[in-house]
Order: sequence, then structure tokens, then C-alpha cells
Amino acid sequence: MHPDRLLGTEPAVRELAREFYGEVADAPIISPHGHVSARMLAADEPFRDPAALLITPDHYVTRLLHSAGVPLEALGLGAAGQSPPPSGAAAPRAVWWTLAENWKRFAGTPVRYWFEDTLARVFGLDVELGPARAERLYDQLAEQLARPEFRPRALLERFGVEVLATTDDPADTLEHHAALAAAGFGVRVIPTLRADAYMDPAAAGWAGRLEVLAQVSGVDCGSYRGLLEALRRRREHFRSHGATATDTGVVDAWAVPLTDGEAEAIHRRALAGETSDQEALAYRRNMLFQFALMAAEDGLVMQLHAGVLRNHHRPTYERFGPDTGHDIPVASEFARPLRELLNAVGTSPRFRIVLFTTDETAFSRELAPLAGFYPSVFVGAPWWFLDAPAAVRRFRAAVTETAGFYKTSGFVDDTRALCSIPSRHDMSRRLDARYLAELVADHQLSEDEAHVLVRALVDEIPRGAFRL
Amino acid sequence: MHPDRLLGTEPAVRELAREFYGEVADAPIISPHGHVSARMLAADEPFRDPAALLITPDHYVTRLLHSAGVPLEALGLGAAGQSPPPSGAAAPRAVWWTLAENWKRFAGTPVRYWFEDTLARVFGLDVELGPARAERLYDQLAEQLARPEFRPRALLERFGVEVLATTDDPADTLEHHAALAAAGFGVRVIPTLRADAYMDPAAAGWAGRLEVLAQVSGVDCGSYRGLLEALRRRREHFRSHGATATDTGVVDAWAVPLTDGEAEAIHRRALAGETSDQEALAYRRNMLFQFALMAAEDGLVMQLHAGVLRNHHRPTYERFGPDTGHDIPVASEFARPLRELLNAVGTSPRFRIVLFTTDETAFSRELAPLAGFYPSVFVGAPWWFLDAPAAVRRFRAAVTETAGFYKTSGFVDDTRALCSIPSRHDMSRRLDARYLAELVADHQLSEDEAHVLVRALVDEIPRGAFRL
Amino acid sequence: MHPDRLLGTEPAVRELAREFYGEVADAPIISPHGHVSARMLAADEPFRDPAALLITPDHYVTRLLHSAGVPLEALGLGAAGQSPPPSGAAAPRAVWWTLAENWKRFAGTPVRYWFEDTLARVFGLDVELGPARAERLYDQLAEQLARPEFRPRALLERFGVEVLATTDDPADTLEHHAALAAAGFGVRVIPTLRADAYMDPAAAGWAGRLEVLAQVSGVDCGSYRGLLEALRRRREHFRSHGATATDTGVVDAWAVPLTDGEAEAIHRRALAGETSDQEALAYRRNMLFQFALMAAEDGLVMQLHAGVLRNHHRPTYERFGPDTGHDIPVASEFARPLRELLNAVGTSPRFRIVLFTTDETAFSRELAPLAGFYPSVFVGAPWWFLDAPAAVRRFRAAVTETAGFYKTSGFVDDTRALCSIPSRHDMSRRLDARYLAELVADHQLSEDEAHVLVRALVDEIPRGAFRL
Repeated sequence: MHPDRLLGTEPAVRELAREFYGEVADAPIISPHGHVSARMLAADEPFRDPAALLITPDHYVTRLLHSAGVPLEALGLGAAGQSPPPSGAAAPRAVWWTLAENWKRFAGTPVRYWFEDTLARVFGLDVELGPARAERLYDQLAEQLARPEFRPRALLERFGVEVLATTDDPADTLEHHAALAAAGFGVRVIPTLRADAYMDPAAAGWAGRLEVLAQVSGVDCGSYRGLLEALRRRREHFRSHGATATDTGVVDAWAVPLTDGEAEAIHRRALAGETSDQEALAYRRNMLFQFALMAAEDGLVMQLHAGVLRNHHRPTYERFGPDTGHDIPVASEFARPLRELLNAVGTSPRFRIVLFTTDETAFSRELAPLAGFYPSVFVGAPWWFLDAPAAVRRFRAAVTETAGFYKTSGFVDDTRALCSIPSRHDMSRRLDARYLAELVADHQLSEDEAHVLVRALVDEIPRGAFRL
Repeated sequence: MHPDRLLGTEPAVRELAREFYGEVADAPIISPHGHVSARMLAADEPFRDPAALLITPDHYVTRLLHSAGVPLEALGLGAAGQSPPPSGAAAPRAVWWTLAENWKRFAGTPVRYWFEDTLARVFGLDVELGPARAERLYDQLAEQLARPEFRPRALLERFGVEVLATTDDPADTLEHHAALAAAGFGVRVIPTLRADAYMDPAAAGWAGRLEVLAQVSGVDCGSYRGLLEALRRRREHFRSHGATATDTGVVDAWAVPLTDGEAEAIHRRALAGETSDQEALAYRRNMLFQFALMAAEDGLVMQLHAGVLRNHHRPTYERFGPDTGHDIPVASEFARPLRELLNAVGTSPRFRIVLFTTDETAFSRELAPLAGFYPSVFVGAPWWFLDAPAAVRRFRAAVTETAGFYKTSGFVDDTRALCSIPSRHDMSRRLDARYLAELVADHQLSEDEAHVLVRALVDEIPRGAFRL
Repeated sequence: MHPDRLLGTEPAVRELAREFYGEVADAPIISPHGHVSARMLAADEPFRDPAALLITPDHYVTRLLHSAGVPLEALGLGAAGQSPPPSGAAAPRAVWWTLAENWKRFAGTPVRYWFEDTLARVFGLDVELGPARAERLYDQLAEQLARPEFRPRALLERFGVEVLATTDDPADTLEHHAALAAAGFGVRVIPTLRADAYMDPAAAGWAGRLEVLAQVSGVDCGSYRGLLEALRRRREHFRSHGATATDTGVVDAWAVPLTDGEAEAIHRRALAGETSDQEALAYRRNMLFQFALMAAEDGLVMQLHAGVLRNHHRPTYERFGPDTGHDIPVASEFARPLRELLNAVGTSPRFRIVLFTTDETAFSRELAPLAGFYPSVFVGAPWWFLDAPAAVRRFRAAVTETAGFYKTSGFVDDTRALCSIPSRHDMSRRLDARYLAELVADHQLSEDEAHVLVRALVDEIPRGAFRL
């Protein structure tokens, strides 16, 4: 990996970018949103093999192989819910080989960048993947993974992670978070409540989930009021375990309040299995509104991830489950959908909402203007498909002129690929350094200010946005 | 302020940009659309204080402070309609101080650029704002504002403004415009008719406005036909006072004709307070269509500003009135909404329409293709949130390949901040010089042509587009 | 024309781009989609005059002149369907002169670039157009067009075209394709089936077209089943003449199956002239779905061009016919509209679909994510208004990070302007070389890989995508 990678092609810009990047290259990592599992950290077992660590569970990697005609079975994926994969799934070494053979297909993608950066940074293997080196790389990785310093916790400590937020079901007891805190682990691992599964009364398994939640919370969820109360208590439980935020994922951002009577009626019909699509939608949009009211009360930062159509290919979903590479973004709007919510709590001092989109047209059109007025609104870092060099540069160019730097969230890695965390944060730091360098070289910003900003972007800004 | 600011970071491009910019740096300013008040120019009184000049009335500035948690009261804003602000509003020096304290939040925004450029260009104060210099700057500015050469008219003459278009209600008598013309003021100040307030029969106060219009025009506006006739007469009145254009602001660009009978029926029901939302919408969309027919008759250039949801936060609107920083763009389309209008008058020799959007996706998708076929259609300069360096560069890159330079409007400052006019035009000139330099350096355009174009963009092109 | 045109302004990037471009500057041309006429190639007659070759039939050129107020008659266009133009249309030399006079209006557009590049590359006339040179250029061109080496076939051979796909009605006998194959023409000219005219039962002339199709195919098209069967046979006929693909143009990409009974009922009502708009829409969306099923059976690559509102200005359409410069893009989506289609055949091994859009927001949001999962989906090259330097660069920047290079289609010239083919492909090669150079200079890609990719983009990639 070249030391100047991503720092720009114009010598004057690159020189400044190098300087700014140098200031934060080794700064501690704050990871306020992601999908590393607390259970895995609590267990702290060695990773099974290179494919299980770097390929099979990472839908960024598997989807591109699938798009080249590789069946998901050949990448170690098994039937939905099964882990480890059933017999019949490909052997790890074969999975690794499949990736190596198709490596050219990743040229120009951030997946390749993170992968190679991870090999170099985490494992000291600074070579290109590809058929010629595949076998030897596999062996070298496998050997390292057996060592204690490559167990999950040791890695996170080595990475300099200061805070790591997980994403958790409200019914989670948070026992693993408690265990980690008790174990004196050097990383502050905090939970994030994600109640998506309780919003849609038409979703399969909704009633069953309510029962589990009722047990954990001690509140009967047979009524709408009960469900709200149970969620309130779980939020409090999460807060007592260090949570500072919640997360919600929705196809669209509409938040529209119902009366208690309307919501209660839908709730009861849903439990009886009689709810219509329209009622379910109304219920979901009301729940989003209610989550905002709760946030305005308890001060948990509300993250909203809007605009992804999940599980686009039903046959793949039915066979392999969710998060298998075919969630596809759709056009998104925010100004109209969030109007009632922001009229209700947008200037409430305890309320805070971080808005994430995969429709980049919303950055300059809606997110930056909203964040540039409402004290509660922050523009979330480029999410998912947009978390890549060119897209990140478009994000800053689209947002900064209207909302500045201080109303953005700071970088969010959003990853379940533990080993890629430092590479992802490093990429972001390089790109922010470059963006600042471009402003300085174009005489839109002073060098002194850029020095302050590049530090703020990895420290003051994410700490502030997520109330860490 | 660095002399090469905004001219690019690549040495070869910057050198060319410098050359092209040099040709137009001191060219006269043509301002075909803006919100400076003719009454204020006719009165020509000194500005009250630095905050009242540069902060309180400028929602570009106040919205970002509000987004940081500063209440609008602390910025000198009073209850809606009140001017000067009521007792209880913050003192000017405190307002100034609040801005200085929050100056870092403006890094990377055009607001900061215009502000500092204005301080340097207009007041000779070439320093960064910030807590350390705030007091002294305030005093220096206050002292200068007391001098005759800082009165509004003297400033505009010093700025080299040749034409300045104001924005005015059809019921305006234009007495201030007449007074300015009679006074031999060196700037040609021309009115622009904006009849938005008469388009929506469901808006509060509509009937009252019709009565005022009836008095001024001498035509009874109790009927739809009467309203159209009154507006036609006012257009003629505006034309006789030098107007060359009208302006219309709408949430969406749909123009759909009603029959006279349909429109008449809605008009009467609206006067009786009985109109439905749907009827009001139909009435508004018909009015937009009628405005186009009028424009095709009298040759006033029709400006259309579409796609902003006004007064997003109702509590702020109710307390402080409109234009207080929470107008938010929404997704906009033009091809379908304007089809009937353009089928009716799009190739009419007297008709001309300049289309402005805050949804930049429309630039390459709809506006440039429309302007690249219809002789009457021009693409308006980047508007509002898009009037900033990176957005302006995206605008030229999105529009030029499909519509060239000659079907764009030339720069429009659209400002109520009188002192920022030269800074805004200067920014535009720098960015156009840079865009041309990039084309020349990439061998897509000859240097000779670029010289012609950079001049045309501040002279022939806006004069042509706005029939000045 | 400068040898480094379009290769970038930054010296380090340009040097690399020059190197990559050099590898493919003279590579054979693969043109898998376009509108050159097989009949014209079979006849191989000399072009009539410079205006008839370069201006009158090219709506890219005529629309911009029209937008400047030049009537289409003055550009040689006659009433719809008439060819050659009727008396009364402008003389070729006057048409040429009109373009020369308005040449400045094309500055910054690809039309000007292709035009001048064509004059230099094809005719050896390396000068700028404009009033001063217009007469002499016309004479020089006219003289050359009379020579045998400027007949259509000789030109295509000189251009190094290896494969040229035409676009043809299913009822076409393909006799001209057969004649070209028999004549031993050095270019492989293959047909492409485009059945748009049979999709919309509400379109004027639909029933008549069915009758012609019935005659040619030998299948009665009085029923929906008959029409499907006739189309299937024509696809087979096309395949036997070398076709590897079909094309479909739609306003929106919705593909929604009907039952056979529903479709049959609409078909019969339509033949009786009784179909509603809603039924016609349902029929069209079902046909798009059926085309996909056919493609999954016979393996013809399905091209889909979605999102253009045809013939926006009805008066021009009525007078001059289609393809006269006023087709305007509209906002487009793909993830939802194509979901049923891709659930049905998206992972089918024989199915392949290339998606083209003129709404560039779809590139990063929907097309790249779809192509990055479905083995069957490819992102089509920048289409129409987007086939221009800045837009092409945005395309690569929007698509590559999510879908890589190998799930894009390779360049498609889509032109009816035969002489512009080499200029268009050359432009694309320069821009791809530049994009790769930027990645290499930014250390995101190795130089070796870029060498492989720049070749693949003009050879392996289009051959693969279009099954050539």
C-alpha cells in the first residue's frame, strides 16, 4: 500500500493532505455505529479460518462474486440461520481460491482497498491477492489466526479502538456488554437499541417477538401502550449499560403520528392476524414518530437509516436469509417525511437525530438544509454503497457548503468485518485530509483551520454527535 | 483574501483561470434578480449597525447559528413583521459576538466566504472573524457605516452595479423606482413583478390582497377574469417602469390550464372561504399557466423558482415569519410539469422562461435538455443552496454539455444582503473563469473562445436572457 | 485537435492517461448498439452533401440550433416521413452556413467535439468551423464525399469497425443484413430486434403493425398468444442472422406480469379500439416482463433504455416526426420496477439485461447495486445526454466503486451519424484511460492492472456483455 494513497493526484494538494492526515493517522478510533457482535467479543475465541473471517460473512465481498456468477454456496454460505455452515458448503480454502480467481472484478472498489489494506495493516502481508499468491496467503493468514494476538479483543485493542458501539435487539439482556465491562476490556463497548423488528405488525414473527420482549421487560405487550412502555424500559436498560443512541432502519422516512386509539386498534388486529398492508404502514410510521418522542425524553441519539429495499431477490432471501448482498437503495426524501417529527421535537434540547441515506441526491437537497437549520439534525456519514473514496468526496462537496463540518456525524464504519475497522477509519481520515487540503489549496480555508478541523472530525465531532 | 482564491489548485488551470478572471474582474455588475428593497434605496439612510446590516436579516447566516443551538432571538430577530426588532431582542454587539464565537461552524461554506470577502472588499478589513477580533471589527464597521460613502446608493455605485432588479408585489405603486429614476441615481433599478401571493386562493389573506390589487389596478378582482385583467395591467405598469421580467416561486412546476368556467368557480368559492385543497392546487397550477400566456403576449421574461418547501418549521414561522432559514428543497421535475405550458408557448417568439431549481439532479436530466431544444427556455444560475463553489462547478459540468453556455441565464445574486453583491458576482466570475480554464487545459476549448465566453457570461448572456 | 485532449489537466495523470490511451487508440471498434441503417450499407451510395451527412439527420446538432431560434425547416428537415426533404426545405449550403454562424453555441458540448474530431479524423480537415471557414469547408467536404473511399462501407472499413449492430423492427426481413453478409463486407453487421412498436396497444397504428408482423412471421397476431409467438419466431429469425441482442425503450422500467387471460382480454379490446390508458399501460408492462422471459429462453441479451419522455413538443412532432430533438429525460427508478422481473429470471444463466438510463442519479443508487449482485445485470454505458466527457467521468465515478468495471457494458455509440463513430469511440477510450490514470495516480490501482483494464474495456468487456 502506497503511503500517499487516496491523498490526491495534484502535488500541492497531496502535500497538504499528507500533513493533515499525519495529524490523525494514529488517533484513537471512535466507532459509534457498527455490527460487531458483543457475544463474539465476550467469548473472544480465535477466528476459524481466513474465509470465515474475511469472506463468507461479508456481503460486500460475496455480492460481487455472486454478480460474476459464483453461487453463494461456493462462498461458504449455508441455509438461512445456520452457523457454522452446513455440510455441503464450500471448504474455506476453496472459498479463498474463488475470491483470488475473481480478484480483478474488485478493481476500483473499496472492498478491494479494505481487503488489501487489512492484509497489510493487520497481518503484515503487503501483497496483491490473485491466483498466484492465493495459497500462500491463505496459509500465512491461517497460521496467524491461531495466535492469541489475533483474537477479537486483542485486535480491537491493537487497533486503538476507544469506543465501539454494537447494534442490539431491545430484548437483548446485554449480558455480554456487562461481561465485557466487568472483564476490564480496554475498549468501551456500548450497546445500541434497534427496534425495527417491533415496528411492523405485518412482519412474520411480530407477535412472537412481542412475547419475548414482554418477558424481558416485564411489561405486557398485548397492547400498543404496553409495547411503547416496554420499549421505554428497554431504552432505560440500554442507557444503564452505556448506550447513547438507538438505530432505526426504514424503507422510507415518513413519520406520521396516529392517535393512541388508532394505533391500539391496529395493534390488536395485528395480534389477531387481521392487519392490512395500509394499517401496517401507518403503524410503522407512527412508531417512527413515537421513537422520536422517546428520544426527546431520554436523550438517546436517534440514528435513522432510510431508503434501502431489503432482500430484493426473494429466492436468495428464502434460501440464505437477510444481509446476503441484495439490499438495493431507492430514491429517498426527507424534508416532507420528517416534517411532522421535526415540528414536534426538532428544536427540543434533548432530541438529536442523525440521518443516513444511500440516495446521494438527498445530501445537498434535503439533509444539509435540514441540518443547517435544526439544532437536532446531523448529516450521517456516507453509508453503505456510498462509503467509498469517490462517493465520500461527493458527500463532503455536497454537504459542507450548506451545513459546514460541525453538523455532520463524523465517520461511521457500520461494519461486521472486525478486521476492516482500522482500514475503514483510515480511508475516511485520508479522504477528509484530502478534502481539507483541496479547500486550503484553493484558498477557501486557512491551513490553521484545516489542522483544527481534521482533528475535530475524528474526535470532537463524532463525540458530540453521538453524545459519547 | 488570496488573489487566486477559487481559481483552482492545478497550476496550469490556475494560470489560465487567472487570465480569464482578469478580463472580467472589474466588469460592470448586472443583477437581474434579487431582493434589495427599492424603498431602502430611495430613502438612502445609513445602515443602523453591523449586525443589522450583515447578520439579523440574512437567513443564510442566522440558520447556521440556529442549527448550532442559538435561538433566533439572540440574533436580533423579533416577532414576525416587526422591524426594528422589539425590546427583548439581542443588542447588535451581542449578536455580532455570537457570530464570532461560532465562526468555525461556517468553515467551508459560501456564507463565510462572502462575509470575509465583503469585509475586505467593501470595508477594507482583511482579517478573519473570530472571538479575538470581534470587538475591534465591530467598532471599525460601525464607524464606517456612519459615513456617507457607506449609504446604500453610494455603495451600489461604488460596486459598479449597472442594472439592479428588485422583486415587487403587483400592488406596489413603484413610486420608489420612479423616485430613483428621477433622482438621477447612477444604477438602473428596475422592478420585477412577483404575483405568488395571488396564485393560491387557500392562502391566508388572499381575499384581502385581491382588494388591494383591485384598488391599485382599478379592476374588480371579485372574479377570476378580473384578477387576470388586473395582473395584466400591473404587468404593463411594471413594464412602463422598466421591468423586463416577472418571477414566480412554486413548490412544484406543474402548470395545468383550467377552463375559464372552472377557474371562475374556484375563485368564487375561495372568496366565500369554501375552497378545498385540491381546488386551490388546481387554481394555482392554472395561474402558472396563465402567467405564461401573459408572458407570451407582453414579452416579460418569466422566472420560475420551483421546488422549495417554505417554512418547514411551523413554530418558527409563527413566531418569526417567513425567510427565517427553514425553507427546505424537495425533489423536483420539470419535463412533465411544464409540458402543456411549453406546448402552448414554448416556441412563441415573445415567450421566455428561466428555470431555477434547488434539486441539482434536474440540471442534466431535465433543464439542460429542455433549454437545448426550446428557444424560450433558459437554465437559471445555481440557486440558493447551490450558489456555492462546489455546487456551481457541478452546475456548469451538468449543464454545458447538453445546453452550452448561451442557454444559461448568467449569474443571479438573488440577495437581500446589499453589501454581498460584489462578492457574490466575483465568486461567480472566478468559478466561470476556472471552468473555462479547465476546458482549455483539457483541450476541449480554445483559449480565444474562452476569452469571448468569459466576457459573454457577465454581459451578452445575462443581457440577452433577461432582455435588458 | 490536440493529441492530449480529454486526457486530464494534471501532468502526472495526463502522462499515465496517454500511456493507457496509446494501448487502445487503434484497437478495433466494437459497436454493439446503434442506428446506422443496414439498407444504407447494402445500397452503399455516396452521401448526398455535407449537410445531409452531418447536420439534417442528427438531432444532437439540430436541437441546439433550434434552441437558438433556428426553425427546423432551415436545417433541411421536411414534413414527417419525407426523405429527401420536400422543396421548400433549406438548401444544403444554407444549412451548413447556419451551423457555422451558430458555432459558438456548441462550445463545451460533445457535439462540437465529435464534429470537429470527425472533420479532422475522417476528412483530414483540422480547422475550427465558423463563418470565416464555412464556405471552403463545405466545398472540401462535398468534393471528398463524391469519392469512392467516402462511401459508407469504405468508411466503416477504414474506421476499423469489427462489429456493428443495427436496430431493426421485428417485421424486418433482414434482407439487407443477408446481402451484406453475402457481399463479403469486412464488417460484421448484425441486427438487433426492437419490438417497442408492438408493446403499446393504444399507440396509433398498432393493429396495422400486428398485421404486417403476422404476414412476416406466419403467425396470426389477432391474439396475445399469437403476438408472443410471432415475436418469438422473429427473435429466432434475428438470431439466425447473427443477432445477439434485443433492445427496448420505455418511459419507465416497470415490468409487471399479467395472467394470460388478462393480457388476452386487453389485446382483444385494443384490436376493437376500446382499450383504456390503464389497460394499455398494464399491457406494456406485461410485455416488458414477457420479453425478459423470452430472453431467458433464447439467450438474446436484453437492452433496456428507460426514462425518456418522447416527443415532448407535440407541434414539432406532428410536423417533423420523431427523433427531432425534444425527447426529454425524466426521473427514473429501477430497483422496484424490475423486482418481479429479476426475481423471475435475474439468476437465470441464459438471461442477461443491460440497463441504460438518462437519469444519472440511478447509477450509484440502483444500477450499480443491482449489477453488483445479479449475474444477469450489466450497467449500460452513459446514454444520450450523458455521453459527454464530464458525464462519462461522473458515470465511472458513480458506478465503479459498487460494481467494478466488469459489470459495465463497454462503450456504446448509439449513433445514426456514421462518420462520428470513430470519434465517439475515441472519446470513450480517452476518458476511460483518464479515469484509470486517476486511480493509478491516487494509488488505488496498479499500473499493470490499468493496462489490463483499458484493453478489456474495448474488447473482453463489450464482447462479454453483448455475447459477441
